[in-house]
Amino acid sequence: MTLAERWLLPDGVKEVLPPQALQVEAARRRLLDLYDSWGYELVMTPLIENLDSLLVGVGRDLELNTFKVTDQLTGRMLGVRADITQQVARIDANHLTSNGPVRFCYCSTVLHTLPANPLASRNPLQVGAELFGHSGVASDAEIISLMVETLDAMQVNQELSLDLGHVGIYRGLMAEAKLTDNQEAEYFELLQRKDLPEIGRFLRESDLSDEVKAHLTLLPTLHGGREVLAQARSSFTAQDTSIIEALDYLDALADQISQRYPQLDLYFDLSELRGYNYHTGIVFAAYVPRFGQAVAKGGRYDEVGRDFGRARPATGFSADLKTLVELSLLADKSGQKVILAPGFGDSAVQEAVTKLRAQGERVVQLLDDSVVEDAQQFTHQLVQQDGTWVLKSL
Amino acid sequence: MTLAERWLLPDGVKEVLPPQALQVEAARRRLLDLYDSWGYELVMTPLIENLDSLLVGVGRDLELNTFKVTDQLTGRMLGVRADITQQVARIDANHLTSNGPVRFCYCSTVLHTLPANPLASRNPLQVGAELFGHSGVASDAEIISLMVETLDAMQVNQELSLDLGHVGIYRGLMAEAKLTDNQEAEYFELLQRKDLPEIGRFLRESDLSDEVKAHLTLLPTLHGGREVLAQARSSFTAQDTSIIEALDYLDALADQISQRYPQLDLYFDLSELRGYNYHTGIVFAAYVPRFGQAVAKGGRYDEVGRDFGRARPATGFSADLKTLVELSLLADKSGQKVILAPGFGDSAVQEAVTKLRAQGERVVQLLDDSVVEDAQQFTHQLVQQDGTWVLKSL
Repeated sequence: MTLAERWLLPDGVKEVLPPQALQVEAARRRLLDLYDSWGYELVMTPLIENLDSLLVGVGRDLELNTFKVTDQLTGRMLGVRADITQQVARIDANHLTSNGPVRFCYCSTVLHTLPANPLASRNPLQVGAELFGHSGVASDAEIISLMVETLDAMQVNQELSLDLGHVGIYRGLMAEAKLTDNQEAEYFELLQRKDLPEIGRFLRESDLSDEVKAHLTLLPTLHGGREVLAQARSSFTAQDTSIIEALDYLDALADQISQRYPQLDLYFDLSELRGYNYHTGIVFAAYVPRFGQAVAKGGRYDEVGRDFGRARPATGFSADLKTLVELSLLADKSGQKVILAPGFGDSAVQEAVTKLRAQGERVVQLLDDSVVEDAQQFTHQLVQQDGTWVLKSL
Repeated sequence: MTLAERWLLPDGVKEVLPPQALQVEAARRRLLDLYDSWGYELVMTPLIENLDSLLVGVGRDLELNTFKVTDQLTGRMLGVRADITQQVARIDANHLTSNGPVRFCYCSTVLHTLPANPLASRNPLQVGAELFGHSGVASDAEIISLMVETLDAMQVNQELSLDLGHVGIYRGLMAEAKLTDNQEAEYFELLQRKDLPEIGRFLRESDLSDEVKAHLTLLPTLHGGREVLAQARSSFTAQDTSIIEALDYLDALADQISQRYPQLDLYFDLSELRGYNYHTGIVFAAYVPRFGQAVAKGGRYDEVGRDFGRARPATGFSADLKTLVELSLLADKSGQKVILAPGFGDSAVQEAVTKLRAQGERVVQLLDDSVVEDAQQFTHQLVQQDGTWVLKSL
């Protein structure tokens, strides 16, 4: 291994150096304080768990994205967390006895075997909040509001748009269409890409009824403003009531969100199926211009606690804090004073240094006289003037 | 896998639930602010790295303690960090151009394949500080002082004692004794346990000179107060100058530490060889009664940057923040107000809620009228009185 290679981090693995690390720390504090003020309790989930606990009730995507190692104590498979949501569901199911709503938040690193896209991080600092024990528009609206407040607090809110979908619409159409497993897998894959020509070919070559073909052709085009909901309502009117319920739910949620954030741009996408494996209701994501991925996202996942013996309604969102800091318009703290002080020895110096540090000032003490400290890092120096120690600008 | 098993965490893996998580977070902020005020810059090292980068210049102990996985992008071996020190050394060697002293701090989770002892955590939250670019008593004294300040800030300081050793003494004796590799390995192992009868047997059965036998018999007994240094000085007088230099160094360091912290109980142990593979000078550890392990520890490791192309003098310390919180006498924040407020809707309510939250109060809004919030968690309620919204104690 060459020297240069030793310096290299694996692709997609990021470290945070000074002074950016201090900005990430400030952002962490700002957001955890925000969540605290909304009644969300902090949890610190373990970085590693028994693989079975980590993966129950979640989809195959997460399994593929999880690094696996062997526990040398027991020989069992362990997984390094690739997400925190299901760990919080375990905690809700296991440790807490309340049957009422319970709110959690977290801010911890997760690891992904592969980046979600070529630019994505494999070690995001996942920050987020989860609300358990309430099913209905009010809790989804609270979680989306807290996501919007998160982006506001981080000043990642210029031309913010909120995408809303509901997996119940796709599920209702599939219940009607009765595709084979292979057909459904192919349609799902094409739908994810919104590949209209290939969807046309797929449907032409299939033996599905004309009505089903019409619905499956329409679905990928149902994205845009609020009118999309009306269009779906008129086209899918003969369907399973679950589709109508999903559309009613989206309408009610959009009303609440618009009331809370009249400026927020809402966008509906009825074929959005991110996290389809475990989401059970609405899915949502926040976008800003000039950033190709969602800056924050989430959804409802009422079933995730089932395998821990307590299936509770659940909704939540998460984001990568490092991404939020990169996109943030918040001013950084680089204007901070850095004070150079004489080395340990004189008690008057030590008193002055201790006092400055207690006030939150950054004070570097000279190690010994022969050491040349890197002068450009200092903004001030502690010097003796008329018998007292005072700060002088450099 | 049974339900109960799904709930279980692997042995030695710990999670932090409410309200303790908030205490750990408060401790994190307190310590990182302390390090900042001493001029230590925060770094956030990656959770995973190329194994070769992670393990250069460190001992076999750390390699055995590192979980290894394959990078699916490249097929190379990756390691999950089991320590942060060598990552910080890479950052010092790689990213920073200053030749003067550079100070770093961190607070991040590490993972160990096996617990250091049956009670130790396999996922400690490692907090610590490192000082690069200065070799000498002043930097070791600064690092030890910062460790003592850490324990003071956490109120883990009742009957605190500081153990000091120096690997130069053992190295000097080994240079004189000229043991075979097998002999040295056996003696090292017995010395670690201070197994005097077995050391006696080992030396009797060996072909070493009487002088060497006398020195190797004496070494494991050299622990106690300051008098230990004088005893070593008189017994090892004929030796290699490196032993005398090490004793001089310990004397000078002890003077500085005693001057800074006159109350601190100093204990010398000249056969303390923790981290012998990479430590190059003093080693130290802090102990409090009724806790069988060190609460914080560190040492000098001047060679660790060599394999990154920049061997700089280095000294540092670390601790497990979760352990510090468990041992801390600091009062927790459980006296905080928790306020129950009506649900979203009325704009006067929303104004009152927003204002309380901005003041740092924790306010939970009712999701809808049918939901029974767990009443015992609330200390106050936002209620209407004479047309305005006010707080009422519960």
